[in-house]
Amino acid sequence: LPTALRLSEIVSRLGGELVGDPEVAVRRVAPLHSAGPGDLSFLAQAKYRAQLRETRAAAVVLRHEERDATGLPRILCDDPYLYFARVAQLFAPAEPVSAGVHPSAVVEAGASVPASAAVGPGAYVGPRARLGERVVVGPGCYLGADVAIGEDSRLHALVSVYAGCSVGRRAIIHSGAVIGADGFGMARDGEHWTKIPQVGRVVIGDDVEIGANTTIDRGALEDTVVEDGVKLDNQIQIGHNVRIGAHTAMAACVGVAGSARIGRYCAVGGAGMILGHLEIADHVTISAGTLVAKSILKPGTYTGIFPIAEKKEWARTAAHLRKLDKLAERVRELEKRVSELGQGNRKGKR
Amino acid sequence: LPTALRLSEIVSRLGGELVGDPEVAVRRVAPLHSAGPGDLSFLAQAKYRAQLRETRAAAVVLRHEERDATGLPRILCDDPYLYFARVAQLFAPAEPVSAGVHPSAVVEAGASVPASAAVGPGAYVGPRARLGERVVVGPGCYLGADVAIGEDSRLHALVSVYAGCSVGRRAIIHSGAVIGADGFGMARDGEHWTKIPQVGRVVIGDDVEIGANTTIDRGALEDTVVEDGVKLDNQIQIGHNVRIGAHTAMAACVGVAGSARIGRYCAVGGAGMILGHLEIADHVTISAGTLVAKSILKPGTYTGIFPIAEKKEWARTAAHLRKLDKLAERVRELEKRVSELGQGNRKGKR
Amino acid sequence: LPTALRLSEIVSRLGGELVGDPEVAVRRVAPLHSAGPGDLSFLAQAKYRAQLRETRAAAVVLRHEERDATGLPRILCDDPYLYFARVAQLFAPAEPVSAGVHPSAVVEAGASVPASAAVGPGAYVGPRARLGERVVVGPGCYLGADVAIGEDSRLHALVSVYAGCSVGRRAIIHSGAVIGADGFGMARDGEHWTKIPQVGRVVIGDDVEIGANTTIDRGALEDTVVEDGVKLDNQIQIGHNVRIGAHTAMAACVGVAGSARIGRYCAVGGAGMILGHLEIADHVTISAGTLVAKSILKPGTYTGIFPIAEKKEWARTAAHLRKLDKLAERVRELEKRVSELGQGNRKGKR
Repeated sequence: LPTALRLSEIVSRLGGELVGDPEVAVRRVAPLHSAGPGDLSFLAQAKYRAQLRETRAAAVVLRHEERDATGLPRILCDDPYLYFARVAQLFAPAEPVSAGVHPSAVVEAGASVPASAAVGPGAYVGPRARLGERVVVGPGCYLGADVAIGEDSRLHALVSVYAGCSVGRRAIIHSGAVIGADGFGMARDGEHWTKIPQVGRVVIGDDVEIGANTTIDRGALEDTVVEDGVKLDNQIQIGHNVRIGAHTAMAACVGVAGSARIGRYCAVGGAGMILGHLEIADHVTISAGTLVAKSILKPGTYTGIFPIAEKKEWARTAAHLRKLDKLAERVRELEKRVSELGQGNRKGKR
Repeated sequence: LPTALRLSEIVSRLGGELVGDPEVAVRRVAPLHSAGPGDLSFLAQAKYRAQLRETRAAAVVLRHEERDATGLPRILCDDPYLYFARVAQLFAPAEPVSAGVHPSAVVEAGASVPASAAVGPGAYVGPRARLGERVVVGPGCYLGADVAIGEDSRLHALVSVYAGCSVGRRAIIHSGAVIGADGFGMARDGEHWTKIPQVGRVVIGDDVEIGANTTIDRGALEDTVVEDGVKLDNQIQIGHNVRIGAHTAMAACVGVAGSARIGRYCAVGGAGMILGHLEIADHVTISAGTLVAKSILKPGTYTGIFPIAEKKEWARTAAHLRKLDKLAERVRELEKRVSELGQGNRKGKR
Repeated sequence: LPTALRLSEIVSRLGGELVGDPEVAVRRVAPLHSAGPGDLSFLAQAKYRAQLRETRAAAVVLRHEERDATGLPRILCDDPYLYFARVAQLFAPAEPVSAGVHPSAVVEAGASVPASAAVGPGAYVGPRARLGERVVVGPGCYLGADVAIGEDSRLHALVSVYAGCSVGRRAIIHSGAVIGADGFGMARDGEHWTKIPQVGRVVIGDDVEIGANTTIDRGALEDTVVEDGVKLDNQIQIGHNVRIGAHTAMAACVGVAGSARIGRYCAVGGAGMILGHLEIADHVTISAGTLVAKSILKPGTYTGIFPIAEKKEWARTAAHLRKLDKLAERVRELEKRVSELGQGNRKGKR
């Protein structure tokens, strides 16, 4: 169980204004509806105010303006959701890992593994790979030749990083992620395909998180680049030569095709798809399920998803959609006829 | 080669009415079009009746009503497809696995591995993990601390189960699946993102099958739950805090975003996407390729896919679609004009 | 660093017409905009001609017709992109791998591993598996019983090939790919699902490339087949019993549902989805993001993607789309009224 913290301790570490008994101790963060004694909860959106009235939490974090919304001991702050993230970090420090190379791991000649790093059972660290201080390489990971991993980064189990790729500091990479596989490059050669060797690398900045089974391909000639602070969820595919700007976040199942350039501070919803060679400006938000087939050069929120319906109704809509051309033509025809009728009437009246 | 079974043996084990020679022996199930001597085939849908007339199968399984559709030895039953599944299981018993921990596997202190379980080469079983009787952990699997796997479950090679997660009895988990990676949770902190520790678990019921490279994230504060009998195909992504009701089946490439609640006995077609925080009732079927952006509270079949066309034709439809607003306005305008013309006519006639 | 090659050597190996100093030496291929001294660049599309004028490349490959487009030393050929692919291969020969079985690998009894093959650290080669000459099995790979891998094929780290599957010659399979997991087959049994054993195999031809985390399921009764020269990018899902014709290429995130038959020389764009049991003719191109719900029996390019818009505009289009049925009815009504008005006018004029 995590150690209990008094509200006074929390406020002294994270700021905020404390109202009520400073000695109240909490051990956990929990949502309003399920919080109980010993739990700290939070009100991040006004729509949960009804839950606030009924919560059994020991204390609550809320906005300054909500000061009087509860009689519970409370911490007032500017951004309860961010505050919640920080408290949760106090309660959930990173799992301790024992430094050292497991006897079943293989570390090739010329690799540099500092004493503070941990290399798990069955992991493979290739020739001349360089791990920073306190790096954790999980069980069964594969790091190719000349890979570099920055200090305090953690690779969970079964991550692959191909030869020559580099990852910055404080990265978190989840199981099954594959960094640096060949981009999909080939030239047609009569009826066959000739492979274009992919000799670029993947270069990943600091503070990046990469989800489970996400794949980031190496560049063809130049590098695929993921800048600082980028957050990628699970099962994302990043094609070769892509550049993702700093602090951009992508939800699960997103695909970014080759040579696309995504700006900084963008957000892409789940299963969004960005086609190749496009440019996306900074501060662009793309809705879940949207396929982007043209560059987006202005900040804003973009979407394109087909509305869902009961199957019978959908079939009718789809049928009309296929005949939209004809419908437009009928409207054009009507406009002509109505205009003639109007003139006829005027003539008739004369 | 599997042992041959006589039709009489099959009927005595699985039921059904036998018509024709009970001594006919079969070794295999095969589709009507490719079946040969020694094969048992089946007629599951009326549309294959033409194939029935030409099949070279030794015997056939069909519905009671189809009794006279063939002169071959036959088994009559209520549901030939289900019967086929059961016969196929007779012919394909699970591969035998030798119990025991492979010398190259690593089992940490405090883990409990019964003598009937098998832990494959290079697998890792974390501290205090608990395997049930006859559990099979494939080569290269990773089970974190405190993981629990119920009896008779089988993990194929290279499966990851993060610390604290639990899997019920008789599960089948395919290669590359990742259970319990961190959910995608973060709070904006000025221009950066602050990670929200994901302290919930993944809790999986009995009789669940999970496909290759499928990912199921652990909950943020509470658990992600997959109930009994759920069947997940390959490359599915289940976000944090999701609950999937019992006996729901999802085809490959489906995505379910965080905190969605899917009912029981649902079916989601391939590449269906369900957005976050939605609720899907029991007995809902979602067509392949459909993105669900609103809760579905009534049973039924729902779809939303854009009809396909030859490229030139599609471009025209898409252009009209973009101008649908204008088209609707032109129709409104026409209605006004036509109504005026109608009144003009009436006036003219007076 | 790769060895430098003189232009004369390149032309003598790969053909083409050399214009300018044959002694110029290059070490690398690079795009026009970033090439420098020592680099060979190429002009594959006319739109990059401006870059040609400013490039700092040592030499350039271009079409015969572009002979006078630059004063740099140059190689003239029919297809500069294909030429570029071939030169790039000269500069990037496959990484040397030392033959032999790593002491931490496990090779089961009856497996056949020629002396020229390499089995990496922690890899597992099952009973009776057969590797061809010079096959490379990367670290942590899993090959089940009776798997066959053809000569000169390379499996990168952490690839799974289930029992009984076969891969042809010169294959490249990237990390995390899973070949031969069970297809998604089950029969409803009252309120439960009964699994249909998947007893077919995956059979893969020669010269196939398979991307990272791609999954190809084994057949239910018959085999899943991938013919010669097929190229599959990352995170593709191929369902059971599918057949993919020779030299077809699929970009990342494509899904092909069970029993679909794809022709030869097809191309499927990223995230394209092909539903089950469909037939796709030879030489069909399917655009990125397109869901194919009907068979395509004629060569051509097919698409179906919902156009993207700014969020507010999209909401309006979607609302109209949902009312398309009503709009069509209003147009029908107008046509009736206008026709009556027309007759009224004619009557009025009489």
